[in-house]
Amino acid sequence: MYKLALVGFGVVGQGFCELLSSKKNFLKKNFNLDYRVVAISDSQKGSVFSREGIDLSKALEWVKGGRSLDEFPGDENGWDALTTIERSGADILFEATWTDIRTGEPGLSHIRKALEKGMHVVTTNKGPIALFGNQLQRDAEEKGLFLRFEGTVMSGTPLLNLIRECLAGCQIQEIRGIVNGTTNFILTQMFEGKSYAEALKTAQELGYAEAVPDADVLGWDALAKACILANTVFGAQIKPDPDKLPCQGIDKVSLKDIEQAKSEGMVIKLIARVFIENGEVRVKVSPERIPLSDPLSGIKGAKNALTIKTDALDEITITGYGAGKTPTGFAMLVDFLDIHKKLSRRGNE
Amino acid sequence: MYKLALVGFGVVGQGFCELLSSKKNFLKKNFNLDYRVVAISDSQKGSVFSREGIDLSKALEWVKGGRSLDEFPGDENGWDALTTIERSGADILFEATWTDIRTGEPGLSHIRKALEKGMHVVTTNKGPIALFGNQLQRDAEEKGLFLRFEGTVMSGTPLLNLIRECLAGCQIQEIRGIVNGTTNFILTQMFEGKSYAEALKTAQELGYAEAVPDADVLGWDALAKACILANTVFGAQIKPDPDKLPCQGIDKVSLKDIEQAKSEGMVIKLIARVFIENGEVRVKVSPERIPLSDPLSGIKGAKNALTIKTDALDEITITGYGAGKTPTGFAMLVDFLDIHKKLSRRGNE
Repeated sequence: MYKLALVGFGVVGQGFCELLSSKKNFLKKNFNLDYRVVAISDSQKGSVFSREGIDLSKALEWVKGGRSLDEFPGDENGWDALTTIERSGADILFEATWTDIRTGEPGLSHIRKALEKGMHVVTTNKGPIALFGNQLQRDAEEKGLFLRFEGTVMSGTPLLNLIRECLAGCQIQEIRGIVNGTTNFILTQMFEGKSYAEALKTAQELGYAEAVPDADVLGWDALAKACILANTVFGAQIKPDPDKLPCQGIDKVSLKDIEQAKSEGMVIKLIARVFIENGEVRVKVSPERIPLSDPLSGIKGAKNALTIKTDALDEITITGYGAGKTPTGFAMLVDFLDIHKKLSRRGNE
Repeated sequence: MYKLALVGFGVVGQGFCELLSSKKNFLKKNFNLDYRVVAISDSQKGSVFSREGIDLSKALEWVKGGRSLDEFPGDENGWDALTTIERSGADILFEATWTDIRTGEPGLSHIRKALEKGMHVVTTNKGPIALFGNQLQRDAEEKGLFLRFEGTVMSGTPLLNLIRECLAGCQIQEIRGIVNGTTNFILTQMFEGKSYAEALKTAQELGYAEAVPDADVLGWDALAKACILANTVFGAQIKPDPDKLPCQGIDKVSLKDIEQAKSEGMVIKLIARVFIENGEVRVKVSPERIPLSDPLSGIKGAKNALTIKTDALDEITITGYGAGKTPTGFAMLVDFLDIHKKLSRRGNE
């Protein structure tokens, strides 16, 4: 029976709790996986700690009704994230707070504190992983702990696990693709004839783009994901600094560029690339003209896709949602399952 | 140090041996995987058994030079497949002989004999798995043995491993896609304006289609793969009988049908489908009109792609080569690695 603590109870945290709640019997039956969530802490939605476990359906409803978890029945309320990690006694921390790609905070402090306390960590937070993933991974390994972050790239669509579990034995030569749904949505709209400004407005109205859309449209989010891949798959040490790395967004792509490409049987996509040049691992984000014969050309709207070039299988492409409540919540669940599998084996040694 | 026996030394067997040879140091270093191939047997190319291990580069060259393995230096020559399995003392059998989708032979007898002798089995042979996969899997499990067959669907492009390792925790609701490269090549040629007869002729000239192309163009190969998915992923018990199951090939697709679809923004693809209807698992193979917004519409030439519909991730699509020497050889390697991982854990218990 795992004791879980959850820091961050926004879209992702709630998506994860919905799955934990709805799949409880399925997970018990199929994987002998049993758990209770002993703490939830969110800077906006309040916090609750309960030794016996929180009723997740009730907590989800509570928050949807606009009430604060500070008033939710339990043993303690009002703990901030660090206090929750310090005092909850959980076995695994699920970190789903916001991303700051310049500092990695507050996720970085949460993950460090959890490892210090001997907790395994699952996160969907790109900031700390893009900036300090290798170091955090080493810290975890030194203590015999697991750090998992499938949700940082393509949400729950298997990418990091695919490479680790299914492509073992291959040498990965290049990874390239569409890892930002917001810009892909905008470019898809422009392909259908809208101007950049109109398409951005639609994306904002639908909730795909933020009011200040810089992190998406300037390519920073894609760059962070490219760095996560470079560092975890290729063993590089690249910080996602858009001023120092080749990083160009879609803000300068005009309708004319797109129509020109279209007339030549091409589409324009924002492509993140990790590749090897003169023995060095490189990352690059830029709008590229893609021929219609490339599987990436058909990726529409908010979908993501990555093409992995390998020695033995040539190119394989995986396509799926790159964001969203349930897919990203599922990323946390699949990481939890992976930790469970590995701990079960260890228990049997 | 695993002792390996290989039955079938055609394209797939040779592709596997090339990888075993070229990746020997990589596999030792990264996975502590060490092996020697003690026996190779092929009904056309002869056979050799060597207690100390066969020099694979030399054997590959030997066969490429048109010489029979019956004359290759070793401890024994001339063993047929069953004698090889009986007497080689190998730990793992790699079965890569030809497919007979009506009887599953000769692969079926090879796999049964190997399990009887206490050998793990890796195969790329669709016949025995489509017909008797569940039963063979049970036989293997009862004896604590592993039976792996990633290469039977989409060659080495991870599909069965993807579902088992990366989508654990999801409920799989439907699988559909393009699993036969020959027919996809022909349909792609027709989309570009060739008649069915011309496109088939080109496919035959390029070695994609056989002189008697029935197994591909009538949909039987796709049906066998659909049954493998139905039985292994959905736990069904469906035999790939094209007379009893809904199975329609591409032989009746006309250029006019394709041009009609094209004018409506659609393409025609041969789609294999595994789905649930009224609580029953069903399979179906037929040419379908696919809108250009579907990732399957962009799969060109000899590529394969499957879309997996799940409860938590909605649809994910994986695209890659579905045949070929190195990709199919790699399927055997990745299965070998998986068995090695699981045996290493067991050894630690």
